[in-house]
Amino acid sequence: MASVKLIEDGEASAEVRAVYEDIRATRKTDYVNNFWRALANHPPTLRRTWQSVKDVMAPGALDMLTKEMIYLAISASNGCKYCIASHTAGARKAGMTDEMLGELMAVVGMANETNGLADGYQIEIDDAFKEKR
Amino acid sequence: MASVKLIEDGEASAEVRAVYEDIRATRKTDYVNNFWRALANHPPTLRRTWQSVKDVMAPGALDMLTKEMIYLAISASNGCKYCIASHTAGARKAGMTDEMLGELMAVVGMANETNGLADGYQIEIDDAFKEKR
Amino acid sequence: MASVKLIEDGEASAEVRAVYEDIRATRKTDYVNNFWRALANHPPTLRRTWQSVKDVMAPGALDMLTKEMIYLAISASNGCKYCIASHTAGARKAGMTDEMLGELMAVVGMANETNGLADGYQIEIDDAFKEKR
Amino acid sequence: MASVKLIEDGEASAEVRAVYEDIRATRKTDYVNNFWRALANHPPTLRRTWQSVKDVMAPGALDMLTKEMIYLAISASNGCKYCIASHTAGARKAGMTDEMLGELMAVVGMANETNGLADGYQIEIDDAFKEKR
Amino acid sequence: MASVKLIEDGEASAEVRAVYEDIRATRKTDYVNNFWRALANHPPTLRRTWQSVKDVMAPGALDMLTKEMIYLAISASNGCKYCIASHTAGARKAGMTDEMLGELMAVVGMANETNGLADGYQIEIDDAFKEKR
Amino acid sequence: MASVKLIEDGEASAEVRAVYEDIRATRKTDYVNNFWRALANHPPTLRRTWQSVKDVMAPGALDMLTKEMIYLAISASNGCKYCIASHTAGARKAGMTDEMLGELMAVVGMANETNGLADGYQIEIDDAFKEKR
Repeated sequence: MASVKLIEDGEASAEVRAVYEDIRATRKTDYVNNFWRALANHPPTLRRTWQSVKDVMAPGALDMLTKEMIYLAISASNGCKYCIASHTAGARKAGMTDEMLGELMAVVGMANETNGLADGYQIEIDDAFKEKR
Repeated sequence: MASVKLIEDGEASAEVRAVYEDIRATRKTDYVNNFWRALANHPPTLRRTWQSVKDVMAPGALDMLTKEMIYLAISASNGCKYCIASHTAGARKAGMTDEMLGELMAVVGMANETNGLADGYQIEIDDAFKEKR
Repeated sequence: MASVKLIEDGEASAEVRAVYEDIRATRKTDYVNNFWRALANHPPTLRRTWQSVKDVMAPGALDMLTKEMIYLAISASNGCKYCIASHTAGARKAGMTDEMLGELMAVVGMANETNGLADGYQIEIDDAFKEKR
Repeated sequence: MASVKLIEDGEASAEVRAVYEDIRATRKTDYVNNFWRALANHPPTLRRTWQSVKDVMAPGALDMLTKEMIYLAISASNGCKYCIASHTAGARKAGMTDEMLGELMAVVGMANETNGLADGYQIEIDDAFKEKR
Repeated sequence: MASVKLIEDGEASAEVRAVYEDIRATRKTDYVNNFWRALANHPPTLRRTWQSVKDVMAPGALDMLTKEMIYLAISASNGCKYCIASHTAGARKAGMTDEMLGELMAVVGMANETNGLADGYQIEIDDAFKEKR
Repeated sequence: MASVKLIEDGEASAEVRAVYEDIRATRKTDYVNNFWRALANHPPTLRRTWQSVKDVMAPGALDMLTKEMIYLAISASNGCKYCIASHTAGARKAGMTDEMLGELMAVVGMANETNGLADGYQIEIDDAFKEKR
C-alpha cells in the first residue's frame, strides 16, 4: 500500500546495492528495513539520506542511546508511526529500559503541553533567556 | 503583548505566591520566569502545571541534562520560541555544550526529515519492529 | 515585513472593495484587519476565504463563542501568532472571560500532551471507540 | 503492536489499581480504556496524567461538552487517531450531535487553512489585537 | 470505523446529489471518493469545501501538476494518510513521474529538516529577506 | 538573540570558509545568509546540510521554481518564519510572480484544511487510491 514498491536486493541497481551493503556493515545485521527499500526508488535520496543518518547518529558528544531517544521523542511528537516503531526498536537496542521510555514519553508529553500554553498565551521571552552572543 | 498580564509577586494571591516560592526553592534561584507569571492568571493551571513539570523533570532513570535536551528538541521541532529560549537556557545550565547542542539539532533535523519521508511514502512498518507484548 | 503589501481602501479594486464592505457590514465595524488586506493581493483567495469564514463562523448548532474558542484553540496549538492574537480578541468580544481562557488553554495543553503519549506508545483504538456506522 | 503491553487488572500493582478504580468511579463505568492501561507501564505518568485529565476536564467556566469538543478539535488537527476516536466518543456522550460535529470540523478546517495563510504571508499583528495589559 | 457514515447516492439529499454530480462532471469520472461521502454528513461543509477545492485546484498561474504536487507535499509533511493516498493518485494522474515524486519527497524532507534547524537555533531573519513593500 | 553566534568570515575555520565559498560560487552571490552562519557553529552540520540542500535543490525532474515553491509551501505550513522569509525570496528570484504566490498559498491553505477534515472524520482510504506495487 506504500506509494512506491520496496526494492528487493535482486532488483536493485549496483548503486542501491552498495548502500544496502553499507547499511548491513554499519549496523552489523543482514536486515535492511522497509524505509531504505522505499527510498531506493530514488537512488540519490537513498544515498544522501543514509549517509546523513549514518553521520548524524554516530556517537559523538552525545551517545547513541541519547540520540535514539531524541529521534524517538521527535517521531512521537510528530505522530510518525513508522519512525516511532523503528526508533523504539533502535532505542531499546541501544539500551533504553521501560523506565527510560516512561520518562521519555512523560517529557515529550509535558513539552507538547507547555509549548501550547506558551504559544497560546503569547508569552514574551524573558531577558534572562536572551543569549548575549 | 501577551494575552494575559504577568502576575507580579505583590499582586499574587496566597495560592499563587506559594507556587512561586516552591519554584524558587526547587530551582535555587529568586527568578520566576514569565511562563509561570502568565499561568498565574489561572491558578489551578499554574499549580497543576508546575507540579507536573517538577515531577517530570526531576532526575530519575534519565538525568536532568537528557531531559532538558529532549524538552528542547520537542520545542525546536514545534517551533515554540518561548520554550526554545527557556529550555536552551535550562539545558545549558544542566551542562549542554555547544557541541552537544550541535548534535542535538542535527538529530532533530534528521528526525523531521525522515518522518516526512516515511509518512510521504506511506511506508509499512516492518514485522521486525512490531513489538510482541 | 509581510510577503505582500497590505491593500488600502484607496488602492483596492472594485472586487476587493466589495469584500471589505461586506466585512464591515457583517462585523458592524469600520475596521478591516491586516489578514484581509494581505489576502487582497490575490482577490479570488480574499473572496473565497472571507465567504468561507463568514459561513463557517455564523452561529448554528454551535454558538459564536464556542466557535471562536475552537478557532483560538487550534491557533494556539499550531502556534500561529497572528491567529492567536486575532481570535483571542474575537473570543473575548464574543464573551470569553479570563476564567474561560484559562480552562480553554488547560484543555489545549492537556490534549497536546495526551496526543503525544497516545501516538508515542502506539496505543491501539479500543473496540468500544470504533463507531458502527 | 503498541510499544508497551496493556496492563490488565490482574497484573496491576496496588498503585495502578487505585488509579483504575478512580477512573471507574469518576466515569461511572467499569471500562478502563487502552490509553490508561498503556500508561500504567509507568505508574507515575499514569497517576499524574489521570489526575490532570480529571481536573482539567471537570466542568467549570466551560461545560463538559465544550471541553470535549475542544479536545477533539486539537486531536483532529494533530491527526492523533487514538485521541480522535476516544474524544469523538467522549464528545458524543456529552451531547455532541452530528450537526455540532459538522460545525466543529468546519471550524477546525477553516482555522488550519487561515493559520497557514497568516503564517505564509508573514502578516503583522494589528495594533488593535495587541492587548494592553 | 470513520466518525461518520459514508453517504451513498441512494440516501443522499438533492443538495448532496447535486454536489456529487458536479464532482463527476468536473473530474470526468463516475467515482466519488470517500472524502466527499464523509463530508456529505454536513451538507454545508460538503458544498463549501468542494467549491473551494474546485476553484483552488483549477489551472491558473500554476498548472494542475504543480498544484497537486504542492498539495501532496503539505499532506506528506502533515502525515495525513488519506490525503497522501488521494493526492499521490491525483498527482500521478496529472503527470507526476516516479522521478518527480522522488525529488518532491526530497524537498519535503529537506524543508522539514531546515525548518527545525532555523527554529531551533532561533536564527534572525536577514535584512536582505525583509521585503520592502 | 539566536542560540548561537553568527560566524563571520574572519573567525571561520578553514573548513567553514570552504563551505561559505561553495555557497558563494553555487549561488553566484557574495552574500552568505544567517542560516549558514548559525550552522557554522557545528561544522559537520554546516557541511552536511549545505551539501544536501545543494543536491536536492538543483534542477532535475523538477525545475528550481517548482522546488522553491514546494519548500516555501512546507515552511508556510510549518510556520517557520525564517524559512518563509528566505524561501519567499528564493522563489521570487526563481521567477515566482504575485499571482503564483497567491495560488500557492491558496493550495497550502486548502491542503491544511482538508488534512484536518480527513483526519478528524477518520476517513478510510478508498481502494482506488491503494497503489498496487
